[in-house]
Amino acid sequence: MPDVALAALIGAGFIGQVHAECLARNRRVRLSQVFDTDRDKCSALAQRHGATAATTLEEALGAGSAFAIIATSTETHGDIARACIRARIPFLCEKPIDTKLGSAIETHVDAAAAGLPAGLAFNRRFDAHYAALKAHVDSGDVGDIEMMFLTSRTQSPQPMDYVASSGGLMRDKGAHFFDLACWISGRRPTEVYAAGDCLFEPGYARHGDVDTAVLTLRMEGGAFCQLNFSRRTGYGNDERIEVVGSKGMVQSRSPVPVDVALYRGNTVQSLGGYQHWYPRVADTYPAQLDAFLDHLEGRALFPTLEDGLVAEAIARAAEHSMAERAAVPVRYESIPASTGEADSEPVH
Amino acid sequence: MPDVALAALIGAGFIGQVHAECLARNRRVRLSQVFDTDRDKCSALAQRHGATAATTLEEALGAGSAFAIIATSTETHGDIARACIRARIPFLCEKPIDTKLGSAIETHVDAAAAGLPAGLAFNRRFDAHYAALKAHVDSGDVGDIEMMFLTSRTQSPQPMDYVASSGGLMRDKGAHFFDLACWISGRRPTEVYAAGDCLFEPGYARHGDVDTAVLTLRMEGGAFCQLNFSRRTGYGNDERIEVVGSKGMVQSRSPVPVDVALYRGNTVQSLGGYQHWYPRVADTYPAQLDAFLDHLEGRALFPTLEDGLVAEAIARAAEHSMAERAAVPVRYESIPASTGEADSEPVH
Amino acid sequence: MPDVALAALIGAGFIGQVHAECLARNRRVRLSQVFDTDRDKCSALAQRHGATAATTLEEALGAGSAFAIIATSTETHGDIARACIRARIPFLCEKPIDTKLGSAIETHVDAAAAGLPAGLAFNRRFDAHYAALKAHVDSGDVGDIEMMFLTSRTQSPQPMDYVASSGGLMRDKGAHFFDLACWISGRRPTEVYAAGDCLFEPGYARHGDVDTAVLTLRMEGGAFCQLNFSRRTGYGNDERIEVVGSKGMVQSRSPVPVDVALYRGNTVQSLGGYQHWYPRVADTYPAQLDAFLDHLEGRALFPTLEDGLVAEAIARAAEHSMAERAAVPVRYESIPASTGEADSEPVH
Amino acid sequence: MPDVALAALIGAGFIGQVHAECLARNRRVRLSQVFDTDRDKCSALAQRHGATAATTLEEALGAGSAFAIIATSTETHGDIARACIRARIPFLCEKPIDTKLGSAIETHVDAAAAGLPAGLAFNRRFDAHYAALKAHVDSGDVGDIEMMFLTSRTQSPQPMDYVASSGGLMRDKGAHFFDLACWISGRRPTEVYAAGDCLFEPGYARHGDVDTAVLTLRMEGGAFCQLNFSRRTGYGNDERIEVVGSKGMVQSRSPVPVDVALYRGNTVQSLGGYQHWYPRVADTYPAQLDAFLDHLEGRALFPTLEDGLVAEAIARAAEHSMAERAAVPVRYESIPASTGEADSEPVH
Repeated sequence: MPDVALAALIGAGFIGQVHAECLARNRRVRLSQVFDTDRDKCSALAQRHGATAATTLEEALGAGSAFAIIATSTETHGDIARACIRARIPFLCEKPIDTKLGSAIETHVDAAAAGLPAGLAFNRRFDAHYAALKAHVDSGDVGDIEMMFLTSRTQSPQPMDYVASSGGLMRDKGAHFFDLACWISGRRPTEVYAAGDCLFEPGYARHGDVDTAVLTLRMEGGAFCQLNFSRRTGYGNDERIEVVGSKGMVQSRSPVPVDVALYRGNTVQSLGGYQHWYPRVADTYPAQLDAFLDHLEGRALFPTLEDGLVAEAIARAAEHSMAERAAVPVRYESIPASTGEADSEPVH
Repeated sequence: MPDVALAALIGAGFIGQVHAECLARNRRVRLSQVFDTDRDKCSALAQRHGATAATTLEEALGAGSAFAIIATSTETHGDIARACIRARIPFLCEKPIDTKLGSAIETHVDAAAAGLPAGLAFNRRFDAHYAALKAHVDSGDVGDIEMMFLTSRTQSPQPMDYVASSGGLMRDKGAHFFDLACWISGRRPTEVYAAGDCLFEPGYARHGDVDTAVLTLRMEGGAFCQLNFSRRTGYGNDERIEVVGSKGMVQSRSPVPVDVALYRGNTVQSLGGYQHWYPRVADTYPAQLDAFLDHLEGRALFPTLEDGLVAEAIARAAEHSMAERAAVPVRYESIPASTGEADSEPVH
Repeated sequence: MPDVALAALIGAGFIGQVHAECLARNRRVRLSQVFDTDRDKCSALAQRHGATAATTLEEALGAGSAFAIIATSTETHGDIARACIRARIPFLCEKPIDTKLGSAIETHVDAAAAGLPAGLAFNRRFDAHYAALKAHVDSGDVGDIEMMFLTSRTQSPQPMDYVASSGGLMRDKGAHFFDLACWISGRRPTEVYAAGDCLFEPGYARHGDVDTAVLTLRMEGGAFCQLNFSRRTGYGNDERIEVVGSKGMVQSRSPVPVDVALYRGNTVQSLGGYQHWYPRVADTYPAQLDAFLDHLEGRALFPTLEDGLVAEAIARAAEHSMAERAAVPVRYESIPASTGEADSEPVH
Repeated sequence: MPDVALAALIGAGFIGQVHAECLARNRRVRLSQVFDTDRDKCSALAQRHGATAATTLEEALGAGSAFAIIATSTETHGDIARACIRARIPFLCEKPIDTKLGSAIETHVDAAAAGLPAGLAFNRRFDAHYAALKAHVDSGDVGDIEMMFLTSRTQSPQPMDYVASSGGLMRDKGAHFFDLACWISGRRPTEVYAAGDCLFEPGYARHGDVDTAVLTLRMEGGAFCQLNFSRRTGYGNDERIEVVGSKGMVQSRSPVPVDVALYRGNTVQSLGGYQHWYPRVADTYPAQLDAFLDHLEGRALFPTLEDGLVAEAIARAAEHSMAERAAVPVRYESIPASTGEADSEPVH
C-alpha cells in the first residue's frame, strides 16, 4: 500500500457514516470516493470529509482506490463485491455477505479465485473485551473449553421495516455471536438446538421471525455453547461472554461507562451499562479498520467471507431446529473450500 | 407445638450432623432422639448434643418427638417417611424423596391422606440470595418473565461411589435448580431439551451419568429457562441465577466472602467466591429449620413432596431428552393430585 | 494446656454472651465459670451453657480455670486483670485496658513481671479481610507503604449513656483502627493531626466527644495514614482499608452479604453491606478465641497490653491535636518497656 | 454567536492539539487561527485542520475569531488573556491562570471590568463521573455533606523539567481537586492541613515540591474533606471521589475500560483502570468545549477565573500548612469581588 491509501466508501447511510469517521481519523488512509444511489446523502457525506461524490460505482472503484468498504443495504452486497473483484480492488464488506445464499457463495468463490483480500465486517472481533477474553482462552488460561455462554440483548426493538429486511434474528444478531463462538473457541458447532418465540412483539411473527431465542450448540470436540438473544431489554444493551474450561473461567462483562454509586439505607443504586448498541461497540470500528489495513499489508488475519458462510450455516440450522423442536446437524457442505484466501497465515 | 418442641433426627452422617447443629442453635426446639443404623455414629452425635441414642427407629419416633428430620441415605427415605406417617408425626425429608419413583409417590399419597405436614429439604429456597431475587420477581420488578438462567457448578467431582447412588446429575444437582426455576417463576416447564456428556471424567459414563450438562426449559406461559451444570470447576463453587423480564433483569451473583483486591500494573487480583458447596449454602440450613417450624405452626409454606415429584418429572424428561437429542414434553400425569397438603395456604 | 481447657468468663453482658457462644462452639475449650455482679445475668448465661455461676471473682478464677476472658465494663478491667495476675492465670481482656491510664500501665507492668500471657481483644486483627490485606502487605505485594486509608463508620449512634463511659470516639472506635494501622504497617505513628466535630449530634459535645473525625498519621519511615470515623451513616456499617505502596495498592472493601442486583432502565439497584457492626465482625470472635488458644500454646502471637497502650497514646495525641488544631507528636515514653511478654516470638 | 463560530487556538503543544481535535469534531465551531511561537508546530497543527497559521498573536485574535483558547505554557497565560481582553474576545484559558499571582488577579479584574466571558479549563467538572456524583449531591440524595474524600494518583512521575515549571503538586494536580471539592459541595474551605513528602523521588525536593501529599480541608459549614495526591502509582491512573452526608454516600469510582475477569483457583484476575491520565479524562475536553459554547450563548455556567483564584488560595494555604505542620486558615481577601462575571446566573 502507499503511505496513505485511498479508500472508496460505498453506502452513505448510518453505518457508512461510521466508516467515514473512522477513515477520517486514521492517518494511514484517506477517504477519496463516496458512492450511494441516494445522491443527497452521497454528496453530503463526501463534502463533509473532503472526498469526491462518485456518480457511478465503477467511478468510485476506479479512481485509484486502494480498497473499498461496502456499507450498502444487504441485498446489494454481493453485486458490489463482485464489482470490486472485477476492478481488482480488495474490499471490506458489512455482514452478511448477501441475503441470497447463492450470491454469497458466488462472491466467496470469485474472491478466492481472484486471490483478492475480502474481509467481512465481524466488528465484534475487534472489541477490546472480546479480544482480551480470547487472549486468555488462547493462552490456555482456562484450559480445554467445556462450556461457553453468549448473551446478546438489545435495548429497543428494531423498527418493523428494518426487521423485514434484516434476515431475521439468527442473521441480524445471531451471525455476530455465532462467529464469536467459533473464533474464540477455534471450533465450529456440529449440532444446534434453538427455541424462540415472539414473547413481546407479535409483529415479528408476520416476518417469520422471533423476538427472543435461546440456543445450544454442540461444538467440535464436545464443548457446549449456550446463547440467548433478545431484541429488547428493560435495562439497556447487554452483551456478555463467559467461557468455562478445565482450568478456570473467563468472563467478559457488560461495561459500565459511568461508575457512580449511591448508598442509601440497605441498597446501592449505581448507573447501568450502555443504553444502546452503538456506543457499546463504537470503538470496534476504528480498530476493525486498522486490522483490515494490517491485513492488506499481510500482517494480520481478518474475518473472511468463509467465516460469513459458516455463520450463515449455523443460522440456517438454528431456524431449522426451531421449526423441528429438535437438535439438528449444521451443514457446511455447501461452503466451497477456501483456496489460500485471507484466513490463511499471511506470506511475507 | 409446645414452647420447645422435641425433635427426632434420623441419620447421623454429614448432613445429619448439619441438622443437629441447627437444632442445637435454635431456641424453639431441642434435639431429643437420634437414630442411625451405624451405632457408633449414632451415639457420638447423640452424646455431643445431650440427646438419646435411640436403638430403633420406632423408639426415636415415639418418645414424645414433635417431628422428625430424615437425613439417611436416599433409598431409605420412603420407608422412614412412612414410619413417621404411621407414628403420626410430621417430617422434614432430605431430597430426593426416594430413589424408587413408586415409593416416592406412595409416600406423597400417604402423607396427603394422613393430612400430615411433610416437607422436602429444598434448602436453597432459604438462601438469602435466591430469596431476595424471588422477592424482586414477586413484586413485579422485572415484569413478565421472558428468560431465566441458572448456573450450578461444583468445585470437586463427587467420589465415584457417591455418584453411583446419587441418582445422577439431574437429580443430585438438577432437582434443586429445577425446583428453584419453578419456585421463582411460579411456573412449571412443559418441554425440556438437555444435552450432556462426560467431558472430563469418563467414569460417570459407567453409571449412565454425565459430568456436564446444559438444558433448555420451555415454561408454562412461554418463558425460556437455560440451565448449566458441571460437577467440577477450576475456580470453586459457582451458583448464580438471572431472571430477565419485560421490565428489567435481576441477578443473584456468586458471593465473595472476603473482598480484598490487589492492584498491580494493569491487573486487579481479588479473592474469589466460596471454594466448596457447603460454606456457600451453610446458612440455608438454620433458615430452613426455622421455616419448617413456622410451617408446623401454620404460619408459612414449605416445599412439599409434590414439589419433589415435579423436580423428578423434569429430571426424567431431561434424561429422556439427552438420549433423544430432541426437546421432549414433561409428564406430570403420574403425580397424584395434592389433597390439602402442605403447599396450600395454611388454615388458622 | 489440657486437652479441653476450662475457661472463666467475667462479664455476662452483650460481649460476654458473644464470648460464651465462641467458647461453646470451640472444641478445645469448655466454659466452666461465669461471674458478673449482676446475679441474674450471671445465672442465666451460666445455665444456658452448663457452666457454674460463681459468686465471687476469686471463685471464678480459682476453680481450675486455665484462663479468663474479661468482658466487663471498661473501668473494672484493670482490677480484674490484676486479680487474674494474682491468681496466676492468663487472660484475654476486652479493649481498652482501663479508662484510667495509670491502671492500664500498672496492669501491663504486672503482667509482664509475672510473665503471664495477657491478650488484648483487638478482634479486628482476626477479620478475614484485614488478615488477607496484611498478608499482601507482608509478602511485599504493594512494596514500601506510602499511604494508608482506614474508614470506620457505624450505622447508628450509640446511646448517650454508652458514650459517657466509652472513653470517646478516639478510644471506642479509634483504638481498633490505630492498632490496625500499626499492625498492618509494622510501624507506629510519630505525629498525629486530628480534626473532629459534632456534625449531627450535639449531645456528644457535652461529653467532650465528637461524632465525626478525620485524622492524618505520619508513620515511622514517612508513610502517611488517613483515617475517618463517623458514629452514624445513612447506609449501614462501613469499614474499609486501603494501602498504597511503591508497587501497587491493596484494598479491603466493605463486604456485601447478599449480592443481588436489579437492572431497570439505566440504573442498577443492589443490596448494600452489613447494616450493623456486629454481623460485620461476628466471625472475628471465634477466630480471636482460636488465636488466643494458639497463643497460650506458644504457637502464635496475639495483641498485647503494650499494643493497647500504643493505641491509647495515639488516641491521646489525637485529642490533643483536635484541641490545638495542629499536628502533635505521639508520646510513647510512658509505656514501660516490655520484658519478654506476649508480643515476642514464642520460645518452644 | 454565528451558526459556526470561528475559534483561535493559542498554543500547539499536546494540550493545544487536544483542543484542536475537539474543535474539529464540534459542528458548532471551526478552528480558524492557530498561533504558537514554535512556528513548525504551529504550521503543522494549522495544516492538519485546514486552519491559518497566524504569524502574530494579534493576527490570530483579530481575524474574525469569536473566541480564543489559551493552551500555552503557564507563565504566558496572563499576557495572552489580557491580549484577548484588549481584542474584546472571550477566552477559555488552561489552568492555572498564571504562575504569578499578581498577573492572575489582574487578568481576573480586567476580564470582569470588560464584562467578557473568561473561562478557566477546570475540565474535570465535565467528567461524566463527577457530574453524575454532583447531580446526586445537588438533588439531596446524600443529605447534608459531612465528609468528602478525593483521590488523585498519576501513574508515571512527570519529567523533572515539567515539574520545575508546573507550579508544584498543589497547583498542577491540587487545583483541579480543590476546585472539584468546592464545586461539588458549593462551599469553600476555611482551614487547611497538609502533609507531604518526597517518598520516592527526592528530585522533587530540589524544586521545593513533594511527590506525595495528604490534606484535610475544613469546609464552610463544618464538613471535612480529605484529599490524597501521588505523582506515581504502581497500578495506573486513579481518581475517585466519595461524598458522605446525613442521608447516605455517593462514590465516583475509577472506571474499568475493559471488564474481563479470569477465575482460577481461589482468585479472580481482572483488568484494571486506565493506565494513564489522558485516556481517563479524554472525554472531558469535547464536553468542556460544548459547555463553553453554551456559556458563550448564555445558556450555562462555566468555571471562572475567580474559581481559579480560589483554588490558588487553597494551594497557598496547603503549602503554608506543610511548612508549619499545623492547620492554617485559607485567605481569600486578595480575590477581588466578582462583578457580574461568568459564574453568576446568565440573564436571558
